[in-house]
Amino acid sequence: MKDKSNNYTDQAEVLVHALPYIQCYQGKTIVVKYGGNAMIHAGLKAAVIQDVILMACVGIRTVLVHGGGPEIEAMLKALGKESRFIRGLRYTDEQTMEIVQMVLCGKVNKDIVSLIQQQGGKALGICGIDGGLLKAKQLVVEGEDMGLVGDIETVDTSFLEGILDAGVIPVVSSVALGIGEVAGKALNINADIAAARIAAALRVEKLLLMTDVPGLLGDVHDPSSLIKVITNTGLKALKKNGVVSKGMIPKVDCCSLALEGGVKKAHIIDGRLPHALLIELFTDEGIGTMIEAG
Amino acid sequence: MKDKSNNYTDQAEVLVHALPYIQCYQGKTIVVKYGGNAMIHAGLKAAVIQDVILMACVGIRTVLVHGGGPEIEAMLKALGKESRFIRGLRYTDEQTMEIVQMVLCGKVNKDIVSLIQQQGGKALGICGIDGGLLKAKQLVVEGEDMGLVGDIETVDTSFLEGILDAGVIPVVSSVALGIGEVAGKALNINADIAAARIAAALRVEKLLLMTDVPGLLGDVHDPSSLIKVITNTGLKALKKNGVVSKGMIPKVDCCSLALEGGVKKAHIIDGRLPHALLIELFTDEGIGTMIEAG
Amino acid sequence: MKDKSNNYTDQAEVLVHALPYIQCYQGKTIVVKYGGNAMIHAGLKAAVIQDVILMACVGIRTVLVHGGGPEIEAMLKALGKESRFIRGLRYTDEQTMEIVQMVLCGKVNKDIVSLIQQQGGKALGICGIDGGLLKAKQLVVEGEDMGLVGDIETVDTSFLEGILDAGVIPVVSSVALGIGEVAGKALNINADIAAARIAAALRVEKLLLMTDVPGLLGDVHDPSSLIKVITNTGLKALKKNGVVSKGMIPKVDCCSLALEGGVKKAHIIDGRLPHALLIELFTDEGIGTMIEAG
Amino acid sequence: MKDKSNNYTDQAEVLVHALPYIQCYQGKTIVVKYGGNAMIHAGLKAAVIQDVILMACVGIRTVLVHGGGPEIEAMLKALGKESRFIRGLRYTDEQTMEIVQMVLCGKVNKDIVSLIQQQGGKALGICGIDGGLLKAKQLVVEGEDMGLVGDIETVDTSFLEGILDAGVIPVVSSVALGIGEVAGKALNINADIAAARIAAALRVEKLLLMTDVPGLLGDVHDPSSLIKVITNTGLKALKKNGVVSKGMIPKVDCCSLALEGGVKKAHIIDGRLPHALLIELFTDEGIGTMIEAG
Amino acid sequence: MKDKSNNYTDQAEVLVHALPYIQCYQGKTIVVKYGGNAMIHAGLKAAVIQDVILMACVGIRTVLVHGGGPEIEAMLKALGKESRFIRGLRYTDEQTMEIVQMVLCGKVNKDIVSLIQQQGGKALGICGIDGGLLKAKQLVVEGEDMGLVGDIETVDTSFLEGILDAGVIPVVSSVALGIGEVAGKALNINADIAAARIAAALRVEKLLLMTDVPGLLGDVHDPSSLIKVITNTGLKALKKNGVVSKGMIPKVDCCSLALEGGVKKAHIIDGRLPHALLIELFTDEGIGTMIEAG
Amino acid sequence: MKDKSNNYTDQAEVLVHALPYIQCYQGKTIVVKYGGNAMIHAGLKAAVIQDVILMACVGIRTVLVHGGGPEIEAMLKALGKESRFIRGLRYTDEQTMEIVQMVLCGKVNKDIVSLIQQQGGKALGICGIDGGLLKAKQLVVEGEDMGLVGDIETVDTSFLEGILDAGVIPVVSSVALGIGEVAGKALNINADIAAARIAAALRVEKLLLMTDVPGLLGDVHDPSSLIKVITNTGLKALKKNGVVSKGMIPKVDCCSLALEGGVKKAHIIDGRLPHALLIELFTDEGIGTMIEAG
Repeated sequence: MKDKSNNYTDQAEVLVHALPYIQCYQGKTIVVKYGGNAMIHAGLKAAVIQDVILMACVGIRTVLVHGGGPEIEAMLKALGKESRFIRGLRYTDEQTMEIVQMVLCGKVNKDIVSLIQQQGGKALGICGIDGGLLKAKQLVVEGEDMGLVGDIETVDTSFLEGILDAGVIPVVSSVALGIGEVAGKALNINADIAAARIAAALRVEKLLLMTDVPGLLGDVHDPSSLIKVITNTGLKALKKNGVVSKGMIPKVDCCSLALEGGVKKAHIIDGRLPHALLIELFTDEGIGTMIEAG
Repeated sequence: MKDKSNNYTDQAEVLVHALPYIQCYQGKTIVVKYGGNAMIHAGLKAAVIQDVILMACVGIRTVLVHGGGPEIEAMLKALGKESRFIRGLRYTDEQTMEIVQMVLCGKVNKDIVSLIQQQGGKALGICGIDGGLLKAKQLVVEGEDMGLVGDIETVDTSFLEGILDAGVIPVVSSVALGIGEVAGKALNINADIAAARIAAALRVEKLLLMTDVPGLLGDVHDPSSLIKVITNTGLKALKKNGVVSKGMIPKVDCCSLALEGGVKKAHIIDGRLPHALLIELFTDEGIGTMIEAG
Repeated sequence: MKDKSNNYTDQAEVLVHALPYIQCYQGKTIVVKYGGNAMIHAGLKAAVIQDVILMACVGIRTVLVHGGGPEIEAMLKALGKESRFIRGLRYTDEQTMEIVQMVLCGKVNKDIVSLIQQQGGKALGICGIDGGLLKAKQLVVEGEDMGLVGDIETVDTSFLEGILDAGVIPVVSSVALGIGEVAGKALNINADIAAARIAAALRVEKLLLMTDVPGLLGDVHDPSSLIKVITNTGLKALKKNGVVSKGMIPKVDCCSLALEGGVKKAHIIDGRLPHALLIELFTDEGIGTMIEAG
Repeated sequence: MKDKSNNYTDQAEVLVHALPYIQCYQGKTIVVKYGGNAMIHAGLKAAVIQDVILMACVGIRTVLVHGGGPEIEAMLKALGKESRFIRGLRYTDEQTMEIVQMVLCGKVNKDIVSLIQQQGGKALGICGIDGGLLKAKQLVVEGEDMGLVGDIETVDTSFLEGILDAGVIPVVSSVALGIGEVAGKALNINADIAAARIAAALRVEKLLLMTDVPGLLGDVHDPSSLIKVITNTGLKALKKNGVVSKGMIPKVDCCSLALEGGVKKAHIIDGRLPHALLIELFTDEGIGTMIEAG
Repeated sequence: MKDKSNNYTDQAEVLVHALPYIQCYQGKTIVVKYGGNAMIHAGLKAAVIQDVILMACVGIRTVLVHGGGPEIEAMLKALGKESRFIRGLRYTDEQTMEIVQMVLCGKVNKDIVSLIQQQGGKALGICGIDGGLLKAKQLVVEGEDMGLVGDIETVDTSFLEGILDAGVIPVVSSVALGIGEVAGKALNINADIAAARIAAALRVEKLLLMTDVPGLLGDVHDPSSLIKVITNTGLKALKKNGVVSKGMIPKVDCCSLALEGGVKKAHIIDGRLPHALLIELFTDEGIGTMIEAG
Repeated sequence: MKDKSNNYTDQAEVLVHALPYIQCYQGKTIVVKYGGNAMIHAGLKAAVIQDVILMACVGIRTVLVHGGGPEIEAMLKALGKESRFIRGLRYTDEQTMEIVQMVLCGKVNKDIVSLIQQQGGKALGICGIDGGLLKAKQLVVEGEDMGLVGDIETVDTSFLEGILDAGVIPVVSSVALGIGEVAGKALNINADIAAARIAAALRVEKLLLMTDVPGLLGDVHDPSSLIKVITNTGLKALKKNGVVSKGMIPKVDCCSLALEGGVKKAHIIDGRLPHALLIELFTDEGIGTMIEAG
């Protein structure tokens, strides 16, 4: 019995060890961009859901923004939809957008909500159209539009705050309502950018971007060269000097976008690690790269 | 100028004429089951959206529950999904349910929300999974289940009431979260029944079922035989005596379900008539059939 | 039956047409100065009451400020009270003031409240003495006072806002509590000025002055010369240039007073037209003259 | 200086002596029927106003209901209005009622409000028409109606409670809105009865009826025979046994009406004594007659 | 690095494992009786403080009731105070009570509050005198009083609930205000009984009595004979049958007192185990004896 | 009987006379520093308690800060504790501080709370440790520390305001929680300074320092030379010119500290006069010296 109670004492010690972190984040708002492998493998998925429920449970106002690339791909394929490419990027025509909306808002979103509800959490699944959360005009890249892809113009967080005030986790699909020339149309939004913009509009404590890499590396070929903490200014210098790998640039730009919009800290974390969110928030081990405003 | 100002005076008279009806319903809750032709034809659709916004605008707590049969059909067809039939009813297998969920929650629901938001209304699109609104076990008809079709066990309206308190129109897809043997699975729910059960749980003033018929007829072959007002008891007597046509029986049963659950009045109205909701609520002309509790 | 349902569809169209106007004014505060013919003829009176109830019913915070000249005249005559005139203006001695107070606060005010309550509206009748709403010193015109006529010093809207927050229509008699040399005495206040000052203190959206003229005319002899929209600056230029008729000057000055005190728009409308308030607010037809701040 | 500070110490002792009484009534509601000599003589009037402000100031929710017989008489006389009498009671015709309403709601009511406001209190003057406070049908005495005299049917205290919650003293004129055959007409109400019915509707702690007698006497000819405390049952026995003088019967009936409607204690106090209210409430000396429920 | 991240993953697993327990107790109220060794040894003391802060931090409304025997003993000794004994129990004379009050309310209580505040928790130290929390008459045991020892008559939890609503931990010394013959005197109260009575008045979820034993044993000489779960009825049967050791009888009676007063579960736990509170609440290991109502 | 009723009328007049003062202070916050003779003699003590309850009862937010020198002395003596003196001031070692804390927080504080509760008031006894009210570093005087004597660094009034909002009188012992080098230790604070700092943090209307002198004298040997009103600037000039007696300097400095921190008026009043607080606040007789900001 002694061993056992020692065991439980150890567990209690872990809880007590998390206490200062819980005290630190309680009542604060954190936006999690959920995506990548953590959204595909069942075990990782279950762990993320638990993490998010625990975060909400200890009083962190938690917003979950998700993408859904692989599921969209699968549905396009099932429907035999051929894609047109411009400069190597897929063009989002009306039919594609319809499928994007259906899969993101109808499948991925509700499946996440379902998992949270099943584990005793409280969640509400919405998209950028609901309550006027995200309004966007057409994104123009180098003088060419990519079809129904949106460039966020306004973020109205009033409903989101109402949901958070009620102790509920908003799960947000990155679809916006078009304005201007695409008025009334649904637009596809990059989920990282949606998360960054929502985080900025809420002026949150932290933005956590879940990725499939260990973080930002000083040398892309050396995993031990992880940059643990850097300022936004430092990050921009690295980018300018070509240290940031091509694949990381969009993530890094999202972090800068959030920080310049009023977010205190943005993190690029490794979603392949089970419970990456809890480890980042509630243990001494910061994982991945933390980018601070300034 | 005289003609014109007379014209405006006439308009003012219409508004004034609506006043006692507005006073009567203000602060009350009304559930609208939206479906049929009113959901297909663009003109009727636009009119329903306007009606619902106006209802909310004058202080009626308005809940919109929708189905989406035709769009589901189209998607099943596009995906080449063959259906299995049992006793003439389609069996909802896992793949079908996935499509039902996607189309209802991702497409139909968000399109309605989008239309309301575009016209200056405030709407939030949810389904029965969100916030634990609808929990269901598997529906068993004559000893046989129909796959992932649900039989509602519990209705938790706490979030719905929060949304209504905030002056927002909840738009609800009829998908539930399974419990018991189908725990964690999404289940398909008949939208009329979902509307009736939600109406009962909220103990609303009125349930308005939009249909493609003029109402309940005394003689199914004679449109002028419309039964304008009847009690639930009277309705059940008619059904017993074979006066209710086979097609109307599910509608009629839904009304009884709602009334016996605490709803004050249930209406079967003709959704093919533009602005059927406003005409029913805000003019002297009751349209369709009104069934009273008792 | 078709004709009839067309008729009801037309009615519904009128309601829908009013929707954007309702959305626009909902939650805003509007002060109506009620007077002139609209207060004398039973039909017009009934229409104003309906208009005001409808305004409140759709969520406009509506304040009704009234005068009562003709009824005061009648009572003075009935009591055989002879008036003293100074420079052609009636001097308000103590006995006259007693009658003014009785008729305005006891008769006219309570009769309006009674009509609103009878039609299902909610109203509370007060005067400037109640809750310290209006405090005034003695009005001095060209070095001479006119007896117990007041010049408003302070407007305390705290109770008024409480009444509006409760969804109730405050009906306000233009009597103030004297301060300074006339401390404790009731003072007579011009109702247009009382309305303008209250509107300014509440920083309302609109002040609607009901008059017995079509509005401000470019040529006083030509009713078709109506000036529909003008800025306060423009209005003052017109007045300087002698375009404003002598009878209109006090109305015009009231509008300037309100606009310079923070009101967004002041309207001079024709109270002889039934439902002038609804036509102005809820139809495409602006009637009378709208003066904008700036 | 010693004498002087002794003097102030004595004053402090008086305040301290009042403390348990203040603690006892704080947060409770008391209805005062204000009338008789206390309303006529300037000194008594000023004392009542001070008493009422002090009551409100220490947290007693105070309602003041007033009559106004002498001022009505004076106005009827000034207007040369002759009265018709039935069985010795004045018949209230339309013209008389108009004068009653004007004098009560416009003159007496606002004069009281003015005095309270001048002394730093907060008051709002209303009548039974405002906010639907008092609705009445025609009073029929021994098969005959007395014209526009009302018999209270309903008391809606919702606005009254809102006013009390805001820490404001409602001053109430005893005029009601007619229903039934006299729908829409103003009706004259006996002020004692209005006070008793309002007290009952609010289920108050105390009803204080200010009269011009020392209280209920055991022997009407012997002022020293004052009955200080009695139960409602005892009171009714006295009345049955002819001990209650004819003039006291209406007062006594009012007290029974209030007590049977839920009021805890009703007092008949001598309004000719300056500060009768404060003496009754805040000193050891109960004055007049206290009638207890039961 | 792998080992390390595994380590952190293990920590995250512990947190996740606690989640259902946190969800279960969130928003519930738990009264902890703090005493015995856990109050003496610095290490145990620090652990209790951490446990209590963590409990409050995850939303458990936590009340800490404490005794302080050893510190009282020490002070009596330091002051050379000799005790009088009656039937073997110490008699609490006025001077002893003064010391009890000083040590409990001034030393023990504030030291606990200080420790909680230093660790980032929020606490307010009160005793039964504050806000009228505990009123007591003199305790009489077998016809003899023990001096200033109290028998709780009333528990007024209104302030306590206010403190809990504000998210603050009330730390309560077991001193009451005397009524009746000991009116105005401070009375000593057994801390277990104070905790039980407060728990009952709050109708809490759980009462946790910290003791220096492993729990209730089936055989007092065999520590492995721990009774893990028992009903109150079962407990009383055991006591009747002489199974409960003499030393345990007061603890056991306290539990019955609480359960019969409305508490759901009472626990006798071993305060000698570090983090006994967390282990009991947040791990699978229930420690000590749980007694259920019924 | 006449004499008697005159007597009661006189009492009513005293109450009425206090009305404008009550109106003036209602809703304002006043900090009373309670000490000196008023804390020693039973009669004066009872009078202070009555005064404070009456103040709270009429809506003054009253904070009572107390010292307790004589009781601390007595306990030190009883324990045979010898004091070490530095420059004539007692050095507060750990054991002394333990006694200070016990006596102030456990005895003096709870005895005051008990008296207030017994008289029907509502009080909560706290010290600077509770809720983080007072945090202090070690006081250094002329380069030497005096042991565990504190110099207040921060005042967190959030709990205090919560207690005042609930209509409760906070009774505050002048003990602080140490930070920096004395982190976690209790520190002794001069009660006058604690009162002044709390008054400043709450930006109160008045600070009332109860002393054993008539106030500030122009000539220390002539009691009739009382300075009734002076500005802070004037006071500092007097001090500079040597007019302030050595004994008064700490009191005078406290007043300046409060006034410069945002308090409107500071009073030095004679606590030897029964009901000094009520006389100062509620009669025409200002007693002692009032120092105004500026």
